[in-house]
Amino acid sequence: MNLPSRDTKGGGHVPTWPDYLQTHRPRFLAEMQEFLRIPSVSAQPQHAADVDRAAAWLFQRLKSAGLEGVRVMPTGGPPVVYGEWLNAPGKPTVLIYGHYDVQPAEPVGQWTHPPFDPIVRGDRLYARGASDDKGNLLIPILAIEAVLRTAGRLPVNVRLICEGEEEVGSPHLPAFLEPHRELLACDFVLSADGGQHGENQPSLTIGCRGLCALQVDVRGPSVALHSGTFGGAVQNPIHALVRMLDSLRAADGRILVPGFYADVLSLADAEREAIRAIPWEDELFRLQAGVPALHGEPGYTALERTWVRPTLEVNGIWGGFTGDGSQTIIPAEAHAKLTCRLVPDQEPDRVAALVEAHLRAQAPPGVTVSVHQHAGSARPYRMAAGHPANMAAHAVLAEVYGREPLYVHMGATIPACELFQRTLGVETVLFAFGLDDENIHAPDEFLRLTNWDRGQFAYGRLLERLGRA
Amino acid sequence: MNLPSRDTKGGGHVPTWPDYLQTHRPRFLAEMQEFLRIPSVSAQPQHAADVDRAAAWLFQRLKSAGLEGVRVMPTGGPPVVYGEWLNAPGKPTVLIYGHYDVQPAEPVGQWTHPPFDPIVRGDRLYARGASDDKGNLLIPILAIEAVLRTAGRLPVNVRLICEGEEEVGSPHLPAFLEPHRELLACDFVLSADGGQHGENQPSLTIGCRGLCALQVDVRGPSVALHSGTFGGAVQNPIHALVRMLDSLRAADGRILVPGFYADVLSLADAEREAIRAIPWEDELFRLQAGVPALHGEPGYTALERTWVRPTLEVNGIWGGFTGDGSQTIIPAEAHAKLTCRLVPDQEPDRVAALVEAHLRAQAPPGVTVSVHQHAGSARPYRMAAGHPANMAAHAVLAEVYGREPLYVHMGATIPACELFQRTLGVETVLFAFGLDDENIHAPDEFLRLTNWDRGQFAYGRLLERLGRA
Repeated sequence: MNLPSRDTKGGGHVPTWPDYLQTHRPRFLAEMQEFLRIPSVSAQPQHAADVDRAAAWLFQRLKSAGLEGVRVMPTGGPPVVYGEWLNAPGKPTVLIYGHYDVQPAEPVGQWTHPPFDPIVRGDRLYARGASDDKGNLLIPILAIEAVLRTAGRLPVNVRLICEGEEEVGSPHLPAFLEPHRELLACDFVLSADGGQHGENQPSLTIGCRGLCALQVDVRGPSVALHSGTFGGAVQNPIHALVRMLDSLRAADGRILVPGFYADVLSLADAEREAIRAIPWEDELFRLQAGVPALHGEPGYTALERTWVRPTLEVNGIWGGFTGDGSQTIIPAEAHAKLTCRLVPDQEPDRVAALVEAHLRAQAPPGVTVSVHQHAGSARPYRMAAGHPANMAAHAVLAEVYGREPLYVHMGATIPACELFQRTLGVETVLFAFGLDDENIHAPDEFLRLTNWDRGQFAYGRLLERLGRA
Repeated sequence: MNLPSRDTKGGGHVPTWPDYLQTHRPRFLAEMQEFLRIPSVSAQPQHAADVDRAAAWLFQRLKSAGLEGVRVMPTGGPPVVYGEWLNAPGKPTVLIYGHYDVQPAEPVGQWTHPPFDPIVRGDRLYARGASDDKGNLLIPILAIEAVLRTAGRLPVNVRLICEGEEEVGSPHLPAFLEPHRELLACDFVLSADGGQHGENQPSLTIGCRGLCALQVDVRGPSVALHSGTFGGAVQNPIHALVRMLDSLRAADGRILVPGFYADVLSLADAEREAIRAIPWEDELFRLQAGVPALHGEPGYTALERTWVRPTLEVNGIWGGFTGDGSQTIIPAEAHAKLTCRLVPDQEPDRVAALVEAHLRAQAPPGVTVSVHQHAGSARPYRMAAGHPANMAAHAVLAEVYGREPLYVHMGATIPACELFQRTLGVETVLFAFGLDDENIHAPDEFLRLTNWDRGQFAYGRLLERLGRA
């Protein structure tokens, strides 16, 4: 660990907050593992009780950290866990955001260790949610505890909001924020969900992509048919689905849904130059993806494709016989799940409607097609790089990493950012410490423990700096 | 039941074979249910012991029917069960064929009653294998028992061969037949696998389609990727697979694989006329299929499409996230299973190679593709309508049904027919009593018990007629 903790040590016997972080590190690690053992998968109804259990765990943890007014608040979906410390009059108020739900662990068989049985291997802690977002969410909580337990106070006012449905697109968050504007009033948001550009390269994220999700269901015969008796004379739902899905994208990756790109803001030359100035190796990215070759929309670099261009991906497909050997059937049904990543100024509902209309238009005769939008869409987010809170974060990251942060975009989606902007009128600084190679949303998700420590120190430093402003 | 059994009754106290069939009917039905309770699914390795159990059951049943030289013979796959009765010198030798394996029961949840717990509802016995082929295979065995137990002898020489891997395409049958030509020497074959055109419309099948089966596996990233982090810059294996599969067929159903139709014999005008003379209602066929509209290759009727034209069907597809809700991944893999039905003179291995070459040629960059052929291909079969055994069967069916049989084709595949033709030099008369609406290869497979009775009577009559020839 390469933390300048000596700088903060005082006269010897009075422990500073960095001392506290170091002293209590074994307990913090044990607590994170306890938190990770709760399979709080928001996408899967069978884990609803686990999601509640994670909220209850967090409720206790915020209280033990010294936060006040801690409460579990209903949303109609997984609850919000809230806490605050508002005893710094005249100082800025910071809203810290994170989420306690996790992605499904499927395919569980591809994990080298059970996903909800956290295991430390060297510097890495493996578990579903280790990086996204339980480990990262604990970072500000532990930093707050350290500062409160050593200095007795925080340098700024803090509110903390933890949601439990980020991984399904925060469907209840908009309606929750609206009536709680006063409770959540703040100068800006710090998001404990997000990441850094590289292990030794800090960054500030100035935009993230939006999202919409659909499912398409194709039904043909009322039951699976014998392909000898009926084959040749009825439409096969898999062929129908395959045709519809194939029509969505050109071979080169361009999306062919009419109107899909209509609301996409064109990239200013300065933006493109800023992105091209980012140190980047396609070959490293390819190795990280584990693919034989990169592939994507012509005319854009890999970074542009993942940061500022919209996508349409089939995330899953199924239909017919999928067991060993062969079964000579024409299946009764075929299904696919799709998501689009969106960029300014695409509207999720509008894009979903365009995709649905296109799929319906492509549906061949002989089958019935239904398309429905999954809950949890999100608008894309973009903020000004020069925002004052960004400047403070910039200084702290430069100090902690010993290197100037880059301004980057995020290809992923954090619905809360745009919701805070729209509902509370404030910007969100993504101040989090995940890395792109940590298998979030995939088997063997992990968190680097050195980054976890560094993040706690950085949060402490940031609170100090914001208090001086 | 409308059997002319009174005609065969003798002087009162001597029971005839039709009497025997009637008297022992309850036992026969119980035995069929016992046979159907064995889940002898040849396609699924977990049922290997059940397949052996069904062979053992059949071994006992052939012995108790009075057959001689009964044996279970290894094939390298599921065993062949053989029995004979060769005590009619100077009379023809008939080889009776059937199979004791069944299709997988999946999707089990769509059955209204468990597939391996046979249940009688009115005239129908529901169970996997009831029609295809256990119920139909028992028909000649019960007829033979009835004749042997009443007359003490059969009017012809009989050999009986029951295989256990028809539903996976009889992969070990060719190598089994070759060294057993002498054991199986016969004048012609009667197949207890097959069916009749309608409940009150008998038929003689003069051809069936061949089969080849393939699986295509597309691999992209080494693990599922986060669609935010990587989406837009890597090839999605599902999109790649969808593109490859879509390229196989035109929207109108024509198969676009180069060379696919090259070896297809064109349909003689007389053949087309014969098929067009078959009483047929597209609307009834549509209702039976349970589809909103029929669909198929332009320029051919539904009967031509299912009888004498080749097909290519995707039987199953899977990849990525298929649970509840959504998961924003680019999956690591996508897979599909395909089968083609073949017509003279298509060669299964040649067609499989053409499909494989086409799929490989269509594979987009950024993924790796593997294609492999499943075991169990079969050549198409065609015989002369005027074959003498066909004539005998024609006369018996006309008597039993009170109606002239039609000459029909079968869209499905019975690999044994072409194998007997090639290896033993004999033709196969399909003398079986299934119907197209009995959900074979689908949930709720059933057998009509009146047809079962009628079939037993018809077999007895046919043996008598063949003995008189």
